[in-house]
Parts: sequence; C-alpha cells; structure tokens
Amino acid sequence: MSSDDLPDQGKIRPAPESFLDSDLIESISRHGVDHRRRGLLQSAFGAAVAAMSGAVVASDQDILTLPEWSRTLGKPVAANPYGQPSIYEQNIIRRQSPGLTQTDQASVAFTPLQNMFGMITPSGLHFERHHQGWVDIDPRRHRLMINGLVEKPIVFTMEELMRMPSVSRLHFLECGANTALEWGNSAVPTVQYTHGMLSGSEWTGVPLSLLLERAGYDKGAKYLLAEGADGSSMTRTINMENALDDAIVAYGQNGEMLRPEQGYPLRLVVPGVQGVSWVKWLRRLEVGDMPYATKDEASHYVDLMPDGQQRQYTAIQEAKSVITAPSGGQKLQNRGYYNITGLAWSGRGTVTKVEVSVDGGRNWREARLDGPVLPKMLTRFHADWVWQGETALLQSRVHDSTGYIQPQRADLVAVRGTRSIYHNNAIQTWRVKSDGEVDNVQLG
Amino acid sequence: MSSDDLPDQGKIRPAPESFLDSDLIESISRHGVDHRRRGLLQSAFGAAVAAMSGAVVASDQDILTLPEWSRTLGKPVAANPYGQPSIYEQNIIRRQSPGLTQTDQASVAFTPLQNMFGMITPSGLHFERHHQGWVDIDPRRHRLMINGLVEKPIVFTMEELMRMPSVSRLHFLECGANTALEWGNSAVPTVQYTHGMLSGSEWTGVPLSLLLERAGYDKGAKYLLAEGADGSSMTRTINMENALDDAIVAYGQNGEMLRPEQGYPLRLVVPGVQGVSWVKWLRRLEVGDMPYATKDEASHYVDLMPDGQQRQYTAIQEAKSVITAPSGGQKLQNRGYYNITGLAWSGRGTVTKVEVSVDGGRNWREARLDGPVLPKMLTRFHADWVWQGETALLQSRVHDSTGYIQPQRADLVAVRGTRSIYHNNAIQTWRVKSDGEVDNVQLG
Repeated sequence: MSSDDLPDQGKIRPAPESFLDSDLIESISRHGVDHRRRGLLQSAFGAAVAAMSGAVVASDQDILTLPEWSRTLGKPVAANPYGQPSIYEQNIIRRQSPGLTQTDQASVAFTPLQNMFGMITPSGLHFERHHQGWVDIDPRRHRLMINGLVEKPIVFTMEELMRMPSVSRLHFLECGANTALEWGNSAVPTVQYTHGMLSGSEWTGVPLSLLLERAGYDKGAKYLLAEGADGSSMTRTINMENALDDAIVAYGQNGEMLRPEQGYPLRLVVPGVQGVSWVKWLRRLEVGDMPYATKDEASHYVDLMPDGQQRQYTAIQEAKSVITAPSGGQKLQNRGYYNITGLAWSGRGTVTKVEVSVDGGRNWREARLDGPVLPKMLTRFHADWVWQGETALLQSRVHDSTGYIQPQRADLVAVRGTRSIYHNNAIQTWRVKSDGEVDNVQLG
Repeated sequence: MSSDDLPDQGKIRPAPESFLDSDLIESISRHGVDHRRRGLLQSAFGAAVAAMSGAVVASDQDILTLPEWSRTLGKPVAANPYGQPSIYEQNIIRRQSPGLTQTDQASVAFTPLQNMFGMITPSGLHFERHHQGWVDIDPRRHRLMINGLVEKPIVFTMEELMRMPSVSRLHFLECGANTALEWGNSAVPTVQYTHGMLSGSEWTGVPLSLLLERAGYDKGAKYLLAEGADGSSMTRTINMENALDDAIVAYGQNGEMLRPEQGYPLRLVVPGVQGVSWVKWLRRLEVGDMPYATKDEASHYVDLMPDGQQRQYTAIQEAKSVITAPSGGQKLQNRGYYNITGLAWSGRGTVTKVEVSVDGGRNWREARLDGPVLPKMLTRFHADWVWQGETALLQSRVHDSTGYIQPQRADLVAVRGTRSIYHNNAIQTWRVKSDGEVDNVQLG
C-alpha cells in the first residue's frame, strides 16, 4: 500500500498562527455598547476582541469579509430530503484496501475509525465485507423460511415479520478477520485498515427465539444453519445457545431499514459473534442436530494454529480495544494537550475497565469511559495526555466482565502463532515520533 | 394539506395471498437429500416446501425465476463510499409541511417517525428547523468566541476544540413547536407532521462547563447568550444551571461530524431544553447576569396563555410520548396481532413507565420498554394488541422520574388554553376505524 492510497486522516492540526480570524471580527464603531440586548450584540464581539491580548481592531475590510454564510440567505429545508455530510467531509469515507482481494465483489471496505466519535457508526460509513458483492433485494419478494427440525416449516414475508413483537438493541459487529494483517509484520498504516471492520449500531427486529418457538423447533436441536440470498449463498452454523439468548432477525439499523450493503431487508444479528455469522440478506434458517461444516466455516474462517491444526467454530469475538486518535497516519503538529481516545468491546460481556499506556505498556492509567457501557457493544474511552515532543508508544487494553484482559501481541502469538487470519485481539501499538508523526509498530 | 401531500406511510400490509412465493422455491429433483451439508442445501429448501401444508412443488419455471440477486454477481465494495438507503426506501424522507411557513428558509422538514425504529434517528432523516436557511460553513474559517463576564475572552478554532477532552452522550432533541397544530382542531394527518420535530442522537463534543472554566467565567453569572453564525444570528439565553450541568459544545452526531443542517461544524447541545436553544452554527457564547430577551425569546418561542399573558423562557420539554405505529395515515389491512410501538421522553429526567390504551384512555396497560432507558433521551416502547376489527382509540402516556404524568389534551387545555404554539405535550389519540384506516382525532 503506497502513501498515495492513504485517506485524509483528519490530521490533528496546529493552532492557527494568529489567535484571531479577522473573518469573524466586526467593527466596533458601527454599534452601541450595551451588550445585554440583541441587535447590539455585534458590539460585544468587537469590544471583546479589543479587550483581548494581541487583539486586532476590525476595519471596514473585515466587515466586508464577514463569512458569506452570515450574510446570505441559506438553503431551504428539505433541500436534501435525505441528508448528506458536509462537503468539507468528503474524505471521510469507507475505503477498500488495494490488493487485499482478487475481486472487488469478494472484498472489504473499511470504516474510517480515525475520524469517528462515540459508539454509534453511521450506516453510511459501516464497513462492508461481501463474498459475492451486495445486492438490491425487493422486500416484497423476499421471504424467510424456517425449516429442519421443526414441527412446521414456515415462511415469513417482510410484512409478517414487521408486524411481530420487536426489540432494539445496541451491539458491536466485528469481522473475524479484523486486524488480520497484524498477525504478520505488515505494519498496515492506519486504524481504518487495521481495525476498520468494526461498527456499533442499534439493531431492530424480531427475537430469533420467538421465530423458533413459532416454528416449533425441536428442543433437542443444538444448531441452526443461517443462509443468505445473495449469489454466494453464505451459510453459517449458529449455536442454539446463541440463537436463543440474544440473537435478532433484524430489519432495522440505527433507526431506519438496513442498508443494502448490510443485508436489506433482513439480516441475522448474533451479538458477540464474529460478523460472518450475522448472515446478510437472510432467507433461511434450518434447525439441526450437528454443525453443518459449510464452506464458510470449513475452508474459511478457521484459525490455523502453529501445529498445523485448525481451530474451527471460533465464533466469539474476545475482548479488544484500540486507540483511534492519535493513530497511524496522523501527525501531532505541536506539543501540548491531547485527548487520547478509542474504542473497547467484548463479545463475552461488558467492558469493565480500559487502561492506556504512552510508554509501550510499562505504565498504565485508567481511561475515562463514556456511558452507557452496554453488553456486547462498543465503549468509547478517553485519556488525557500532554505531549512534550518525546517518542511515545500508545497502547490501550480492555478488561471485561469475565475477568479477561486483552493480551499483548507477543503473548497472543506465543499461543496462536502467526499463521492465522482471524481473531487477532492483541493490544495495538501506535508510535508517536519526535516530529509528531504517528505510525504502526509491533513490539516484541 | 391535501391527501396528495401525504407521504407513503409504510402501510401495514396484509399477508400475501399465497403463503409461499414461488420465486424462492427451488426444484427438489435437481438435488440430493442430505440436508446437513452445504452444496446440497437447496434440497432442504425444496423438501421443506413439499412437506408444508398447502405447499407448491417447484417447477423448472420456478428455478428460472429464482430472484436475480441469488443468481448474479453483486456490486463491489465501496461502490458507494458513503452509503445510502435502499432504492426501495425512497419514500422515507423528511418532508416540509406545505404552507406551514411563508418561506422555505424559515420552515420545517419533519422526520418520518412512522417508519422508524429504536431510539436513534439517522442523521439523514433528522428534522430541520431553520430561521434563515442552512449554510455550508468551512470549518477552517469557523471560530467560537466566549466573552462577557469572563476573566479572559477567548476564541477557539475547530482544531483547538477537537483536541480538548470530549464526551459522547445520547439525548433527544425536540423543537418547542413540535405538535403545535394540535393546540387547535387541525387534525394533522400523520405522526410525521404531528410529532416529527423530534430526534434521538449520540452527541459528541466538549463539555460547556470546561470551556466556561477555561475562560474564567464569573461565578455569579446566571445566564449565557448563545449565538449562531447563520444569517439569522439566532440568539438564545441559556440558564447557567443548564450550561454547567450537562450542556455540550458539540461537533459530532451519531459518530461523525454534525450535518450542515444540524449546525456543522458546531452546535450547542442543551439536554432536555427545547431545540431552539441548541443553537446551530454556534459562533459565540456570552456570559451575562440577566436574561437577554432576544427576538427569538421575546417575540417568538413564548407561550400565549388564555389571559393574554405570555409564558417566557419555558425551556424544558416536559414528559411526552406518542404511538408511531399504527398511526395516522396507515391502514391495518387485516385483523390479528399488531405490535403497537412508539417513543417516550422527558426533558426533566428518565422515563419510568409508559402505558398504552386502545379505548381512548379508559383502560391502560404497561408497555414494554427497550433498554437502555437513558436520561433526557428517547425510549422505544411496545405493546401487544390483537385487533378484531373494532373501532379503537390508541393512546400512550409516559411517567417520568419526577413523578410527572403526561396529561390528556383536555386537562392541558384547561390550564394553558389553545392560543399557544409551543410546548404541547398532550396525549395523542389515533383512531383505528373498522375498515382499518387510522386517523388523528382529538377527544373531549
């Protein structure tokens, strides 16, 4: 990947050379002095400017350069009936990693984590991972069948599903191959490419347990096959335990219908489990009594261990965290305070603590968490940092409600080797160099 | 408003005439019988179909009509670097209410609540209320000044603000004029137009208290003036109590930068307070010792009482709820089970209970709430209902953590009259007629 491929990382820019921008300064002379009443408020702006250290007294020229948006009639409501981001944010997009896969339909487009806030991923920036491209399904023609070990096979229309009792819950979604290239010494340059197969959304749909009950599933059945309607007919085995716990047959994401790239009109949501099992364009659920060993869980999505054996059905996404800013490809443009921020999550429960280190793991301090901290959902963390120009090694590590602590890369590699593609939840290290540039390094 | 102006309300459609859709049925004859292994899975679909009551045995013609999305290569990843809703959802948009205002720049576009799920409003569907249109501000040229009763007036660039400690929190935003037309006998036809100046978002930014501390605000000061950078120079008085409690100078919404229509790059977030105080395109905060009585809080956004006096500075949005489906303009197309669903919120705290009535308030039962239930945020509720074809009067009422209960319209009108525009939090009634059509009625 060349530097030309790098997105605008929303660089952390310096303070401007002059503290004041004459664009916003208005003349004192044109207004009165009472700053308590509207209509004279411009005067307060000017008076305050005059009172400031190093202040610039506005000239008529400054008035003429009052920003156009403060002088003109704006755009009407519903100019965009479905709104879009600002024209100044056009670089904040999901991006395909060049050369990662042989075809663009069986590929990945990553979420720009370095530019994002909070725990919600806007659906327009939700990562994509398709196996035969994404499709535009007509919801009037889409059906969901439940068959196999059931009393009565049943087929649902979308209208039938959307009339049933529904739930909305916030959960993270992470591809099992997220951070895959870090198994090697790839030094993928940015957090968009190292961790960008990750999202947090509010999912809405019918509890899977309710649909299984309605079909009269065999209480001895231990597995479920989920099948998608795209050309790849993605199929995955789901543990009945997960299915009956908190899985959702979802049609809604972040308040509206699923996006086509996310499985419109129907997707399986299996909280805590890797993304490939959240089958998109869901058309069939089959109840069974043994794992199905489909192509997507036998030849793919298995973890190659150092001894040549494979871990199969490694479904749960273990606890993991990453600093999203400052992160690789960004540049600190001057010394001083920075808010180190990132995301933490666990497929086994709730984040209980996040720690941040600026010296490669020698010293840790507890980060501040934005609430609510929810099970199997992203948690945003923050840590204060004053950068004095030294080389720094930024790391985060999460603790979850099972007592598990995110491992250092060396400890994970000691057990799992480096031959796998999947389930890399090691601590990520970002190096801040003395010139402020941030890059991706692997310690040990 | 004529019926031609009504949006597609996402009608609650009947079950299809045939239980099965031949589009999805594949031939049995072409495949084996082992339903446990991928590659032979189509056979299971066919076998299940054959086993079903009233099943249709698939013909070769059915195979030929397997949906195109299951037979073709889909679209590549990042085909839309910033994703969009499905082409089948093009009617789910925000809509201006025709004739509501004299110019489209000082108007409203409403959120399609009848089609939405959960508590998050996708930013593309967030309602718009502008006073002189919306503007595209260049964030490099935008500044925030804090002046007035402060030790040192200060001007921030966006870069400076975005380096500071930040918080992300989920809060509702409701225009004080939401449900305004219900003060009269308007019978606005749909929930999009009755309650669609409402949203729930995750907001990210700098705590206002931190910025005030940094400017050295006068601890005796009781008020703050917030001023926008658009042509209307929207100005509002904010109580210092609200400012220091949970207000945020926000640049992020739902994980990304604010949208231009929502104040990009900077907006004041004042949880629980009416939307007009969440000043968009925020450029200045002035600390003061008395309310400012600006045009936007003296001649507008005041509540005209029956005796001709005005309630001023009625900032807090009282507890309120509304059923979003079934709702006005929808049609129940057959009898049977429906999931009554809606939203509840309180500007004074947390929703503690929502009750639903199907007989105009004679009998109530408690609704199920989707968690997490958060302070000053929307809460999604659900209630089971089996419709037998009778005329029904659907209502919801919320209780909040202060003990307040949402009033019936007659009780609210008895105190406040019908001359106001603002702060109508009365219980909403939707009538389901015997033909299944739903309309807006006012009781008593």
